Amino acid sequence: MLNKEQITEWFKLLQDKICTALENEDGKGKFIEDNWIREEGGGGRTRILQDGNVIEKGGVLFSAVHGKVPNFLAKEDVSNGEESFYATGVSIVIHPQSPMVPIIHMNIRYFEMTNGKWWFGGGIDLTPHYVNKEDGHFFHSYLKQACDKHDSNYYLQFKKWADDYFFIPHRNETRGIGGIFFDKLTATQTVTKEQLFAFVQEVGNAFAPIYTSLMAKNKSTSFTESNKQWQLLRRGRYVEFNLVYDKGTKFGLETNGRTESILMSLPSNASWLYNYMPQNNTSEHETLSLLKKNISWV
Amino acid sequence: MLNKEQITEWFKLLQDKICTALENEDGKGKFIEDNWIREEGGGGRTRILQDGNVIEKGGVLFSAVHGKVPNFLAKEDVSNGEESFYATGVSIVIHPQSPMVPIIHMNIRYFEMTNGKWWFGGGIDLTPHYVNKEDGHFFHSYLKQACDKHDSNYYLQFKKWADDYFFIPHRNETRGIGGIFFDKLTATQTVTKEQLFAFVQEVGNAFAPIYTSLMAKNKSTSFTESNKQWQLLRRGRYVEFNLVYDKGTKFGLETNGRTESILMSLPSNASWLYNYMPQNNTSEHETLSLLKKNISWV
Repeated sequence: MLNKEQITEWFKLLQDKICTALENEDGKGKFIEDNWIREEGGGGRTRILQDGNVIEKGGVLFSAVHGKVPNFLAKEDVSNGEESFYATGVSIVIHPQSPMVPIIHMNIRYFEMTNGKWWFGGGIDLTPHYVNKEDGHFFHSYLKQACDKHDSNYYLQFKKWADDYFFIPHRNETRGIGGIFFDKLTATQTVTKEQLFAFVQEVGNAFAPIYTSLMAKNKSTSFTESNKQWQLLRRGRYVEFNLVYDKGTKFGLETNGRTESILMSLPSNASWLYNYMPQNNTSEHETLSLLKKNISWV
Repeated sequence: MLNKEQITEWFKLLQDKICTALENEDGKGKFIEDNWIREEGGGGRTRILQDGNVIEKGGVLFSAVHGKVPNFLAKEDVSNGEESFYATGVSIVIHPQSPMVPIIHMNIRYFEMTNGKWWFGGGIDLTPHYVNKEDGHFFHSYLKQACDKHDSNYYLQFKKWADDYFFIPHRNETRGIGGIFFDKLTATQTVTKEQLFAFVQEVGNAFAPIYTSLMAKNKSTSFTESNKQWQLLRRGRYVEFNLVYDKGTKFGLETNGRTESILMSLPSNASWLYNYMPQNNTSEHETLSLLKKNISWV
């Protein structure tokens, strides 16, 4: 029977593999590592790359923490507040130098409690500064293929979940072009823990080939100062989503997590201009028109 | 008896006076005005100045809105959810060009319900990029004098409230050097509505002389690229406070307020570097040591 140590070990190896793949494609940047210990139990291995050729700021984080179940789970009615929990995961956010390379985020996680409850969660989503239909098709098709190997319903179900989750209500915009998002996946009569873990591994393994392809394809595309300014505004929206809505960020800050690891998702710089609206018939305007739910990218 | 129309009218005039004072001291920037209408009732007059000599991005906002009482007040047990409300206020955030000029925020507001409940709230607080004891003394002494004219307990009480409110738990830092903050001030056996309004007017009238003095005193101080980089990091903290903790921002976004007016508080640009810590014996390090509660500035 699959146990938490095996899952944890695999997540650590995935962090290693992804860091190597990103460093290779970047060609200059190197990850620095901070090992941290959580007072209440466990800790993590935060790896950050800043000022690479392609990556401006990126984090690939592993953590495995344990302790008394946090309050929010008691509220969600999966705990009586007395159990202990164990949680492990890998979280990634990459902000590229070029506005022509998309921002990407991935997370996979495993959670279990001493009352026997356990689940997997995770997802990958893409936030292009300029939405490019070709990249959108490539990204979503890759995810669909990965999902289809495990369950023919996963892609549509988890794509919708991502559309709903990565949404900024006060802007009436999706954060980017979505991807897949899933949570609380646990064994049922038709799926075992091992099968779910195989799916989560598939998602984890998809990250490096997807993002290094998008880096390689777009890193040499030329851009202007005005493209760069637009990138800063889009990063502003990324900051808004992460600080106002993202559940992982909220959970981390509320449970006294390691702030510098949680907020590695924020870009090196971002911009806000009052009431900025791109002109019609520009690629910026086109991008806004594609930051909507329910677009079929495959 | 003082009514909401009189309060509203005074708030509008205050907006005018403050905009004129800021434009005069800036010497270049001009406020642009957007009038907006709230679907559920009322609206506002948003005035924004961008790219001035001294002010990089500043907003001086007036609004007067009404309608069915929002849910959050029903939760706070001051409403049965059936009443109508009327709320009016002036809100200001100024981000200066120079790291040597502090960021400032002011808000004064009046709220009433058809069930007869009403109150005033507001405050002013200062966020220097570099904390300067002389400016801190000037700022707090001005506020103390303004408070003392009305009630000898106000300053200490409202200064503590500001220390507690303008605090970033995940950084264990105050946002800046505080100021005064107050809410739900209503008539008692010892204070009338007219007296409370006179205090709120005192606070509103204090804004322009305080901030134009700080602009004039600091705008010509020279600075380096490294001071500018520090300013961007401090602005990052300002963004974190406003998006994660500020109740006005949360309330505005949750109640479908005008996003561009609510988020005028965000700076033109801001920066996040992973785990940046200033060296000992630098003015940046000194500033961090002064971002604490319970410092006596007067």
